[in-house]
Amino acid sequence: MQEVKHYQEIINKRLEDLNFPPGPAALYEPIRYLLALGGKRIRPALTLLAAGMFGCKPERTLSTAVAIELFHNFSLMHDDIMDKAPLRRGQPTVHEKWNTNAAILSGDFMLIESYKFIAENDPADLTEILAIFNKTAGEVCIGQQLDMEYEKSDAVRISDYLEMIRLKTAVLLGASLQLGAVVAKASQSNGQLLYQFGENLGIAFQLQDDFLDVYGEASVFGKQIGGDILENKKTYMLLKALEMADRQDQDELERWIASTDHNAEDKISSVVRIYDKLDITSHLQHEMNRYTEKAFSALALMEVSEEEKEPLRALAQSLLVRTQ
Amino acid sequence: MQEVKHYQEIINKRLEDLNFPPGPAALYEPIRYLLALGGKRIRPALTLLAAGMFGCKPERTLSTAVAIELFHNFSLMHDDIMDKAPLRRGQPTVHEKWNTNAAILSGDFMLIESYKFIAENDPADLTEILAIFNKTAGEVCIGQQLDMEYEKSDAVRISDYLEMIRLKTAVLLGASLQLGAVVAKASQSNGQLLYQFGENLGIAFQLQDDFLDVYGEASVFGKQIGGDILENKKTYMLLKALEMADRQDQDELERWIASTDHNAEDKISSVVRIYDKLDITSHLQHEMNRYTEKAFSALALMEVSEEEKEPLRALAQSLLVRTQ
Repeated sequence: MQEVKHYQEIINKRLEDLNFPPGPAALYEPIRYLLALGGKRIRPALTLLAAGMFGCKPERTLSTAVAIELFHNFSLMHDDIMDKAPLRRGQPTVHEKWNTNAAILSGDFMLIESYKFIAENDPADLTEILAIFNKTAGEVCIGQQLDMEYEKSDAVRISDYLEMIRLKTAVLLGASLQLGAVVAKASQSNGQLLYQFGENLGIAFQLQDDFLDVYGEASVFGKQIGGDILENKKTYMLLKALEMADRQDQDELERWIASTDHNAEDKISSVVRIYDKLDITSHLQHEMNRYTEKAFSALALMEVSEEEKEPLRALAQSLLVRTQ
Repeated sequence: MQEVKHYQEIINKRLEDLNFPPGPAALYEPIRYLLALGGKRIRPALTLLAAGMFGCKPERTLSTAVAIELFHNFSLMHDDIMDKAPLRRGQPTVHEKWNTNAAILSGDFMLIESYKFIAENDPADLTEILAIFNKTAGEVCIGQQLDMEYEKSDAVRISDYLEMIRLKTAVLLGASLQLGAVVAKASQSNGQLLYQFGENLGIAFQLQDDFLDVYGEASVFGKQIGGDILENKKTYMLLKALEMADRQDQDELERWIASTDHNAEDKISSVVRIYDKLDITSHLQHEMNRYTEKAFSALALMEVSEEEKEPLRALAQSLLVRTQ
């Protein structure tokens, strides 16, 4: 994990040094604010890590890594407006601290800035880099759209949910790795395997996030426990429970979903009781394992020495054992 | 003008044939709706026209032209949210017809789509094309930010206003032409002169728009006459009047700006009476001429036969004599 920490530091340093063109402070302040809230910089670290596997130095990959982190933060800024989120990393969201217009326009500007960093790449690689970056960026929008639609839908299947989290979260992890491989001029097949590693790991990671929202420790998880239950989020946990429950439990789950007047703790504990009874955790663990195994199979197929694969393996394991 | 019409038809045909990836209709419908509202497609037509000056066929420039029109419509979709505009080309804006979230996310998606079309260019030109496109896109955001700030400011100078319209409107016209030149592999200097032509023409065109908002015929202009006056927009007309007015007229202008309870027609006719008295139109015409002459000087310096320059000259003249 030393390598990941080292890369995270390089990225944080570069983000602190970002120079925006002269112009209205009101446009840049929300960007600086959101970037300064921190985060683990997992995505750009993956880019540097992937490139490093092929002997490519961070200097050559840094622009692409910064582009990915800017894109990610653009999507957070706009998603927070759409989701009416009051907090991001424990601090007021941009639309709360400033206003919706500021969050729209600064987000737009951040997305355009990300393309400025993409454009710094070797012209010989630009077409391929843009193809991956553009496809992924579009998919992240589609994922957000599906997420919003599923909130209002009663007909969400587990397969729909898995596809939604693939688009909203997992593809960007895959692309972060693949772009590192492209910049490092690795083979097509190694790039694609890295993508598959990141994509499957991303789905497993999001499933774990759903689990931690119910069973995690607030202090470790960094969010309010039971938030998904209170918001009736159609996570794997809830969808699986609705699928497996007998008539009586199904009715109870649906009563809690429909209820607007209740004690929050009562709702959480009642829903968790049903999850426990149905042993949803085992099913989720099984599903997580399925995606984790796919990720590690892709890693196994890569034509790189086992030693070079080690940091990626260590990172994956550190991400996937946060509480258990 | 035959050439421009021909190019507009090519672009409209291409926009009708746009294929979006399979996915949620709710994401694509607002994009199709806004594009179907029409518009003159001036920007992409400029791209095809500029490339045509150097013997480049529309097929080779069409991706870039579509990218520019998508970018332009993205900026309209997001600006309309920020400006709380109820109508666009006489029809409900996207955030009115759907909702703000739809306008944010479909706008984001349209911006990303524009980069997919940019990426279709010859890899040898991509770095230069991205440099122009990214710079311009960022400037359009800065222009919108300044426009919003100036609405609330009492200290806007004419030079601030001119810089704002340059960024918000004129640079995209310049870039549309320059990108056509780059795709056509014209010389750097011809590309830059085309940019200057478009940029200066764009400023002149926006000044004319301010004039038409006060003195145009609603049927020709396509907008409500006096709208800028009612909204206290700090246009060249108002700023020049505030600068030139004697104490009494200045007080009257400021009373109308501060007033919240008045008859709309009274406000418009009173402000227009002051504009007439100060002959603001002559000053505006002088300023417009200054920018138009700059535009034509750039055109004169271009190393292209006079015959090839003719369509651009005709287009400029048709844009600038809409009522007078």
